[in-house]
Amino acid sequence: MTAEGEALFCPLEFRYGRDEVRALFSREARLARALKVEAALAESEAELGMIPKEAANAIAHAASSGAVRLSHVDELERTLRHDVMAITRALAEAAGPGGAWVHYGATSADITDSALALEMKAAAAVLRQDLSELAGVLLALARRHRATPEVGRTHGQHAVPISFGYKAAVGAAEVLRHRRRLDELLPRLAVGKMSGAVGTGSSFGANAEAVEVATMLRLGLGTDEAPTQVVGRDRIAEFTNWMALVAGTAERLATEVRNLQRTEIGEVQEPFDEAQQVGSSTMAQKRNPTVSENVSSLARLVRAFALPPLENMVLWHERDLANSANERIVLPHAIVLADDLLVKLTTIFRHLHVNVERMAENLESSEGAVMAENLMLTLTARGLPRSDAHEIIRTLTGPGATGSLAERAQGDPRVMKVLSAAEVAALLAPDAYVRAAARKTERLVDRLETELAG
Amino acid sequence: MTAEGEALFCPLEFRYGRDEVRALFSREARLARALKVEAALAESEAELGMIPKEAANAIAHAASSGAVRLSHVDELERTLRHDVMAITRALAEAAGPGGAWVHYGATSADITDSALALEMKAAAAVLRQDLSELAGVLLALARRHRATPEVGRTHGQHAVPISFGYKAAVGAAEVLRHRRRLDELLPRLAVGKMSGAVGTGSSFGANAEAVEVATMLRLGLGTDEAPTQVVGRDRIAEFTNWMALVAGTAERLATEVRNLQRTEIGEVQEPFDEAQQVGSSTMAQKRNPTVSENVSSLARLVRAFALPPLENMVLWHERDLANSANERIVLPHAIVLADDLLVKLTTIFRHLHVNVERMAENLESSEGAVMAENLMLTLTARGLPRSDAHEIIRTLTGPGATGSLAERAQGDPRVMKVLSAAEVAALLAPDAYVRAAARKTERLVDRLETELAG
Amino acid sequence: MTAEGEALFCPLEFRYGRDEVRALFSREARLARALKVEAALAESEAELGMIPKEAANAIAHAASSGAVRLSHVDELERTLRHDVMAITRALAEAAGPGGAWVHYGATSADITDSALALEMKAAAAVLRQDLSELAGVLLALARRHRATPEVGRTHGQHAVPISFGYKAAVGAAEVLRHRRRLDELLPRLAVGKMSGAVGTGSSFGANAEAVEVATMLRLGLGTDEAPTQVVGRDRIAEFTNWMALVAGTAERLATEVRNLQRTEIGEVQEPFDEAQQVGSSTMAQKRNPTVSENVSSLARLVRAFALPPLENMVLWHERDLANSANERIVLPHAIVLADDLLVKLTTIFRHLHVNVERMAENLESSEGAVMAENLMLTLTARGLPRSDAHEIIRTLTGPGATGSLAERAQGDPRVMKVLSAAEVAALLAPDAYVRAAARKTERLVDRLETELAG
Amino acid sequence: MTAEGEALFCPLEFRYGRDEVRALFSREARLARALKVEAALAESEAELGMIPKEAANAIAHAASSGAVRLSHVDELERTLRHDVMAITRALAEAAGPGGAWVHYGATSADITDSALALEMKAAAAVLRQDLSELAGVLLALARRHRATPEVGRTHGQHAVPISFGYKAAVGAAEVLRHRRRLDELLPRLAVGKMSGAVGTGSSFGANAEAVEVATMLRLGLGTDEAPTQVVGRDRIAEFTNWMALVAGTAERLATEVRNLQRTEIGEVQEPFDEAQQVGSSTMAQKRNPTVSENVSSLARLVRAFALPPLENMVLWHERDLANSANERIVLPHAIVLADDLLVKLTTIFRHLHVNVERMAENLESSEGAVMAENLMLTLTARGLPRSDAHEIIRTLTGPGATGSLAERAQGDPRVMKVLSAAEVAALLAPDAYVRAAARKTERLVDRLETELAG
Repeated sequence: MTAEGEALFCPLEFRYGRDEVRALFSREARLARALKVEAALAESEAELGMIPKEAANAIAHAASSGAVRLSHVDELERTLRHDVMAITRALAEAAGPGGAWVHYGATSADITDSALALEMKAAAAVLRQDLSELAGVLLALARRHRATPEVGRTHGQHAVPISFGYKAAVGAAEVLRHRRRLDELLPRLAVGKMSGAVGTGSSFGANAEAVEVATMLRLGLGTDEAPTQVVGRDRIAEFTNWMALVAGTAERLATEVRNLQRTEIGEVQEPFDEAQQVGSSTMAQKRNPTVSENVSSLARLVRAFALPPLENMVLWHERDLANSANERIVLPHAIVLADDLLVKLTTIFRHLHVNVERMAENLESSEGAVMAENLMLTLTARGLPRSDAHEIIRTLTGPGATGSLAERAQGDPRVMKVLSAAEVAALLAPDAYVRAAARKTERLVDRLETELAG
Repeated sequence: MTAEGEALFCPLEFRYGRDEVRALFSREARLARALKVEAALAESEAELGMIPKEAANAIAHAASSGAVRLSHVDELERTLRHDVMAITRALAEAAGPGGAWVHYGATSADITDSALALEMKAAAAVLRQDLSELAGVLLALARRHRATPEVGRTHGQHAVPISFGYKAAVGAAEVLRHRRRLDELLPRLAVGKMSGAVGTGSSFGANAEAVEVATMLRLGLGTDEAPTQVVGRDRIAEFTNWMALVAGTAERLATEVRNLQRTEIGEVQEPFDEAQQVGSSTMAQKRNPTVSENVSSLARLVRAFALPPLENMVLWHERDLANSANERIVLPHAIVLADDLLVKLTTIFRHLHVNVERMAENLESSEGAVMAENLMLTLTARGLPRSDAHEIIRTLTGPGATGSLAERAQGDPRVMKVLSAAEVAALLAPDAYVRAAARKTERLVDRLETELAG
Repeated sequence: MTAEGEALFCPLEFRYGRDEVRALFSREARLARALKVEAALAESEAELGMIPKEAANAIAHAASSGAVRLSHVDELERTLRHDVMAITRALAEAAGPGGAWVHYGATSADITDSALALEMKAAAAVLRQDLSELAGVLLALARRHRATPEVGRTHGQHAVPISFGYKAAVGAAEVLRHRRRLDELLPRLAVGKMSGAVGTGSSFGANAEAVEVATMLRLGLGTDEAPTQVVGRDRIAEFTNWMALVAGTAERLATEVRNLQRTEIGEVQEPFDEAQQVGSSTMAQKRNPTVSENVSSLARLVRAFALPPLENMVLWHERDLANSANERIVLPHAIVLADDLLVKLTTIFRHLHVNVERMAENLESSEGAVMAENLMLTLTARGLPRSDAHEIIRTLTGPGATGSLAERAQGDPRVMKVLSAAEVAALLAPDAYVRAAARKTERLVDRLETELAG
Repeated sequence: MTAEGEALFCPLEFRYGRDEVRALFSREARLARALKVEAALAESEAELGMIPKEAANAIAHAASSGAVRLSHVDELERTLRHDVMAITRALAEAAGPGGAWVHYGATSADITDSALALEMKAAAAVLRQDLSELAGVLLALARRHRATPEVGRTHGQHAVPISFGYKAAVGAAEVLRHRRRLDELLPRLAVGKMSGAVGTGSSFGANAEAVEVATMLRLGLGTDEAPTQVVGRDRIAEFTNWMALVAGTAERLATEVRNLQRTEIGEVQEPFDEAQQVGSSTMAQKRNPTVSENVSSLARLVRAFALPPLENMVLWHERDLANSANERIVLPHAIVLADDLLVKLTTIFRHLHVNVERMAENLESSEGAVMAENLMLTLTARGLPRSDAHEIIRTLTGPGATGSLAERAQGDPRVMKVLSAAEVAALLAPDAYVRAAARKTERLVDRLETELAG
């Protein structure tokens, strides 16, 4: 980081996020996309005979050659106080005489919203790839640990046995649901417009529909069927809502790691560089799940970023500008952070330390109580009313009970009337439940891997 | 309303919402759905030979015959402090000896989440119908007024001419996008589970997958591929997020009516019963857009209801209960209000008073300035640099200008050098722009009506 | 619950919340408050000679005598579609000839906003009492357990010893901060207005200021210094924001209980009726912290309710109606739930089962590592560079270490060079840290009890 | 902006916000504050005899002399992956032998949270000044236009006459309420801690309370009475909630300008540089209220930033880290934007073009209907039942009415029975209402100016 870097303000410039994602939103990249739209417009208009071919060529060349410098655009904007006018002036200057045809018939939002659609499309591609990688890592973990016994927990309490792999598979399934959602919303998100000041295309005359379709085809975008001055903001809000959903999953997965890493549980540990990393400035022994906590923290912010786009949907008449400034901040920040969350989780799960022994210890610590359900169901199957069976278990496992559940059950005449001691012991071994988890995990991983590859 | 009604607390009991939607969430309806799931489970288990056929028959009959009374369930719950246990006990009692097989192998959440999926599916059907009706009314308005001249407004300022029908068509397109989104998310939302305490199906033994699939088929639901104790909460959050999007559109449409009804604009008026309705207690002359304002108000609440489900996604391990209580409130309230918004908007647009004369007056009030763009574009086409043309218009329309824009332009030598006075007059008549709007509206309405019917 | 009750929709009617709080918002109570404001207005106007004394007496009598029936108001509202007009008509009818002077000079919002202020003032009193009780229970717990050793945890990892009482004292301090905040905001919240259609008092002529002040004095309210048609909505938003803060504390305290009650931790247990209550329908042995989870769940909803009032602040001109409908829902729901959260927490902490043995076991389970900080600080005090001391601890407590930290440290020559074996043992005993916690807890409880009583 | 600037990502680095506010949050400034806290700690400890005086002097000198370079800290952090450890190491290196005593007894959060309190205190001072300036400008506008007639509007409809100055005074009162709130919360916000890993001060031994108090005194901060590892997060959430309230007012004021500047209303215009500024790239005649729209937009984001701190309140045990990352982003962004909003509004209102003629035209455009209330009240005072008077006005002003209300009323026998034609004319002149507004504005401005100066 240079001396200038030391004055930086936003932690997303230097602390969070990846360069390649941040680069999507640099001022240079934004200018390049706006120029690309102006070029596509000029070329489409030339094709339809609305402006001279040479003008279009000159514009397209000036747009892609680097002739339009950001610093010059900034200078023009300081005078004009209008960002798109500054770009069109700079482009017109750079295109020579043909420059008079820059932006012909277009309104500013035709450029900015189409450029935004390019940006969103590129961002969606990054996030889709992130989801695929995270799902892949989770599926590998699921397959590896499909039969690793662990206690399932509900309400923070031991419930019944599960396998660690099943946990991972549940995560993978959730991640892939987000990928499906993204695939569904992308055609609504990646749409531009070239239809003038109020969306009716009137400034393009009889060619309105043709200009719009041709320009969007060149750009690889769909067309907003019914824009106002801008593309409908429900499209943006749908995307930020989707990121909020992704953030929910990210926080859930991070919270799972944080909880399983608790001192008293110790079943997993997120990667930690034992040689160098410092856990705490005063408690040198600590191994804190700081990356997972970081994911939890940033996820909350991604979620909050969903609010302004929802309010932005309420534009007045053919548009007001009240969506503009917050979108310029929300979209890049939310996307860089959503990527960051997913990449961090992928690293965590790729290198997660899974403590199989500790999982077994915890599972056995209740001396069979986690299999109480199985005993209860069998008592019912052997003819006891369900509520009686439930009551037997409740009292056998209540406060004051000592010894393993098997011993207690074997000492209870109500149980012994319908079951042998060996049956009780078998029913209270966790194996059957873990096997069930393993079978389901296997089927699930097969299915999800097929989807992932698809 | 009875005497008891006078003590009611929640305005959704008596002030907002429709009976038929509220009824989806009555305590009676909830109980009936839970019993339906228990019955489907028993029947599926009997089919698979897991429980006696007669028991299943007795359970199914008790579940549908009204034998299980809500008041009795309430009584049991007061002792057990567990709602599903109360239902299963009451059902078991009602089913006689076969009642011992009620809920066999299931965990509470198998019942409640499958019942919730039935509820969500029914709610989605209502909201889909609401969207269809609103879209239909907007499309009819769009066709009727496809060529009704009106000024388009951006930043609250007159921009260029449009047609009122185009405005309505934009609304219809937005509404139909929501219908498409709902169709996409429904298969993710309408899923239940029958897979026991931690989602692995272990309590159902070898039949786990078969029991689950059979039960969901009977209920007309999909199956959560990878549940924990509960169905993944991303599904619920996706739905409430979707309602927040719908609320955004509702508030946008309501705001449009409120703005167009302003005293100074007066282009539309929401239905008002002139014979009886009171606008203001002290300003008897007022015609306030109160229904539209009401829609704006309730939309904000529907939007806020999207937050708790997003936080609920972060369940601990195989589930915690922290989603439960707020879901019981958020889902019914959000759905009843979302329906209410849509139904009110449908009424508003069905009976909207459109003041075509006032639209024409407003359009003409700027004496041609709204067509300045057309003049500028033609000046450019006749060879003036775009920035010169822009500058000419800017000065012709600046402060201190008097008379119509046509007169001013006809008096400007820079304009007259390239255009005749007649050309100037023609360019500044709004007709061309309104015709463009009409053409686009017509195409759009054709397309959207096809989709609506589909 | 009657047959009608079975059709109820909102869970706040029957499942959550207390009757005495719900009663604040019943339709009866709302009507009574509106009538009280009308009466105070009439009496003030009579006092100032603006209306006849007999009229005021008749109005005041009709307002308080029960002569105005809710059912009749409902009937009038169905025709007028204006709630305040319905009330004034009903009151005028009930007041006989003097009824002509009902609502003289007032606008609807003068009545509704002043009545709302009465409602908010009553609600604030309830919530203040709730906070006081919760703080009292936490302080008692803090004093009782001021020296009960427990491990402090950061990042979910054991950190250093603490006392359980200190935890409780931290909670009490947070709760009392909310009480202070409430005391500060109340004078801004409990303000009404009697200043007509746009807040300038013009409809009351020369007496405007006097009428307003006199009416508010009668009602025990402050006066909005600069209202529009309505009282400034920042006042409401400040209150719902405050409830969101309270909800944050409630969720924090509930989460603490849920985490300390985890099977692997087991340091506390929320009250559970062992004789009858059912933990799980299939896992009869479970003791789930369901009330704490319930608090977590409802807290999220209270937080979400803060959003609409923030948006409602953006009223157009002298007011629009877009605050109205959501306020009617948000305020009662948020207040009933905020009370519910606090009352539930008070019960939890009053009857909390504190497992002192388990706390001791957990504290000792790391065999001294939780006191590593103390050793490090002393090494530093004895002349080792801080980073060396940190590094010694880091390696002594790293993976692969066996035996207690004391044994390991006593076997390390770098440590032994500056400390004796006995010193090491003393430094690693948790007592000193627990004593420090006890001392601080004691001072804190003394101070907070004084504040609580104040 | 340099070449590096062209790659910048966050619009708050270059597009929104002021340098002097941004500078509060630069990485340099953050480092300086952390060093200041370390120095204050060392000096306090030396004073209490806990560490050598020379060490404290060396540390204090190294902390303030610029000897600790950000680039070196960054380098250390890359290895240690712990930001505070990196700072303490760099400081220790710079302080020579005395450096061993850096950070003695402290935990990282003692430094970061105390430094954060310094940051918040500085930010609060800036925002308080912003509020004072905005209030001052609004009060000047209020006094100047205290008697400028304008129509009051409710529901977007003409209501009764008001003065433009009253509008401004209402805004000033709201702004000053925020200043009062800030003054109340600041003592809760500007608090640090020096109490070690879990807040009990145990690592400071017997001097714990003295060290903490002395350090905070040196820093000009209060002390958190009951911290955990961190200062209670309710303090931060209260501040971001407060900024959300400020944002609500900012959006309200901006929306007022936007609405009054509508083409059809035209009563105000935000400053616009006629000589150079471009309103629209294709509609050169436009004067868009873009700064006000910008304020509306950014206000929504400030509001959204209130959410993560509310969730951050729910820390686990003695703290988790899930507040940290989002706070690093939320606080600087929210504060820079809140300042930006207020400064922009101050500029808008300082240079607002107020079109007094247009206000008069609009007021008169309804030909007296805006004074209907006055007529109604007088009819009531002359003995007509209120509901009859209301009904007369309602019909006189209903659809189909032509001519001024005075003419219509003078032609209505029901009115003429109790009023003369001259009385009707006088009652329907707006003067009385405007005078009432002027009187109230004057009193209000006097009072608020006193508060502002205080």
